[in-house]
Amino acid sequence: MDHPARQLKLRSALGENRLDALLITHLPNVLYLCGFTGSAAALLLTEKESVFFSDGRYTAQAKAEVRGARIVIAGKAPLTSAGGWLASKRPRLSRNRQRRLGVEAEHLTVAAYRRFAKLVESDFRLGSAPALVEQARMVKDSDEVDRIRAAATLGATLFDTALDAIRPGIKEAEVAAEMEYAARKAGADGMSFPTIIASGKRSALPHGQASAAAIPARGFVVCDFGVILTGYCSDRTRTVHVGRPSQQARRVYEAVQAAQQAALDAVRPGTSVGQVDRAARKVLQKQGLAKYFTHSTGHGVGLEIHEAPRVAAGQSEILRPGMVITVEPGVYLPGQWGIRIEDMVLVTERGCEVLAPGNKELMAL
Amino acid sequence: MDHPARQLKLRSALGENRLDALLITHLPNVLYLCGFTGSAAALLLTEKESVFFSDGRYTAQAKAEVRGARIVIAGKAPLTSAGGWLASKRPRLSRNRQRRLGVEAEHLTVAAYRRFAKLVESDFRLGSAPALVEQARMVKDSDEVDRIRAAATLGATLFDTALDAIRPGIKEAEVAAEMEYAARKAGADGMSFPTIIASGKRSALPHGQASAAAIPARGFVVCDFGVILTGYCSDRTRTVHVGRPSQQARRVYEAVQAAQQAALDAVRPGTSVGQVDRAARKVLQKQGLAKYFTHSTGHGVGLEIHEAPRVAAGQSEILRPGMVITVEPGVYLPGQWGIRIEDMVLVTERGCEVLAPGNKELMAL
Repeated sequence: MDHPARQLKLRSALGENRLDALLITHLPNVLYLCGFTGSAAALLLTEKESVFFSDGRYTAQAKAEVRGARIVIAGKAPLTSAGGWLASKRPRLSRNRQRRLGVEAEHLTVAAYRRFAKLVESDFRLGSAPALVEQARMVKDSDEVDRIRAAATLGATLFDTALDAIRPGIKEAEVAAEMEYAARKAGADGMSFPTIIASGKRSALPHGQASAAAIPARGFVVCDFGVILTGYCSDRTRTVHVGRPSQQARRVYEAVQAAQQAALDAVRPGTSVGQVDRAARKVLQKQGLAKYFTHSTGHGVGLEIHEAPRVAAGQSEILRPGMVITVEPGVYLPGQWGIRIEDMVLVTERGCEVLAPGNKELMAL
Repeated sequence: MDHPARQLKLRSALGENRLDALLITHLPNVLYLCGFTGSAAALLLTEKESVFFSDGRYTAQAKAEVRGARIVIAGKAPLTSAGGWLASKRPRLSRNRQRRLGVEAEHLTVAAYRRFAKLVESDFRLGSAPALVEQARMVKDSDEVDRIRAAATLGATLFDTALDAIRPGIKEAEVAAEMEYAARKAGADGMSFPTIIASGKRSALPHGQASAAAIPARGFVVCDFGVILTGYCSDRTRTVHVGRPSQQARRVYEAVQAAQQAALDAVRPGTSVGQVDRAARKVLQKQGLAKYFTHSTGHGVGLEIHEAPRVAAGQSEILRPGMVITVEPGVYLPGQWGIRIEDMVLVTERGCEVLAPGNKELMAL
């Protein structure tokens, strides 16, 4: 990871965005730009320099991790520290009368913004910066692709762990426990989100976190799970059936599988994410199931489990080589059951590569 | 948990806070008020009613969980949905010309606020609401105390798991894996924060998450860990020594232990949290160690791992029966090693109760 280069690229883009300085407060963006993994930080970028702010808990960690930025440790919140620094160093930033400072409006609370504004508003005109870091992060470099592929590969093995554990009567949370243990033992930093094991009627909940409910003798089990490995997230869903599936269950499963394949087939450079969403939805529409597909088709994955782009209806972002998105249509029959199938996919020069491909046929346990 | 009563109490306090409506967007606050555990929601309170907003993924879950509020599910973000509802229902809210709507400025991003404001600003005057829900949440009711005690009791057992696992050569992450597995098997919903196992030089990092580093043949291991059980968090730290501790290591350990005890002794109704912090710091000062205690003494715990009050220098919040805080002084010698000892403590009518008390003498493994 060439953190200084990432900062330089962003700093050289300040002018064209009419900014004298950019304040980064979203922690995954701070991590992306300078390598810091702690929980309290701000990174200030000007054309001339990068300055990193944290507090006393992180003195040693900042020194060990931060690349390409001067480190300022203070006994106050990083944002307050950045405000004080800006107020004192203002003459070095720009000779313009009207200095412009961009903040991350999507990642700064109203209260934090107001406190910060009080410190700097006599010297700077504050404004929402464009999502420059999120834009940069959408296209992964080769180091990142390697890490994401490794995370996806490790993540995929957890489905085998789930298959070994799932049986009527075992609690959903126990299945999750086995998967999370296997992930940790295999070197994962942790899970990328709370593991979803949603069985029987609970499979109709798209976000049914593993609960104390016992897996019933017959029905679907939605398994949605991911790891964090060397900082990068994986995300995968498989749905299995305990006992013999009904004809309707088979029919709906096949429709979801076909919808997922149609969306994967649509992933290539130049296509919009909205078109990928539409490809999945169209298949379900033909089967009269579109109204039960109640969420978007996918999202970017990387340092965060959910990041840009959103793969959803009406979204116009154009796919480019190096983007990594999920493709995860689902059908949820309220009060009955649900099915979701999800893969991570890397956009390549000519099309796409499904990361850690694997069996998606309906399995009856 | 009497969710409708919590809402009623808050709704009846709107008038004295000069609000016609209050929009809750911080998810733990939504959970506290109406029981919803999902990841997309807003709750609007007026004197007359409570309205809950979520999206299509949560139709069934909202119906199953939400108490005391009308449920509105829409195909857009909950905040947008709330804005639209407000714009259409405004006449019912108040007969005042100048209707006042409070938002949670500490928990709403600048961008979300601006999008929301556009929808409602012709009808409402927007302002920062006082932290009414955080204030209410500081004092736990008896149901909450029961749950927190159960979480603390389960959490405490994980230290035994750690002691069984810790030995020279094992990776920090493997120790964490064993603890997390034991937590899940015992019924925890998950961990309340990334488990900290910081050994050798890494023990000098107050927030050293369990890494791939192997535990050295000799040195301290800081273990900071917690579970979520029926929605409530636990938080506990123990520091053990692998091999024979040096005289200095013993001396510093005893100082941290004495500082923690002094702070615990200070916890009682009527005392300020700042005094609790001072009690710990004073002990370390006498030993010339205060400058190595680089963080605050503690924080509230409940639905969130960090919640009000902050137990820190200069904070004036007065302790009241039902509050649950951590007491966790530490000493970190940069580049060498560190020690932290932490308990959760319930403020009682007459003093305090350490939750899941246990051995804090220096253990050499």
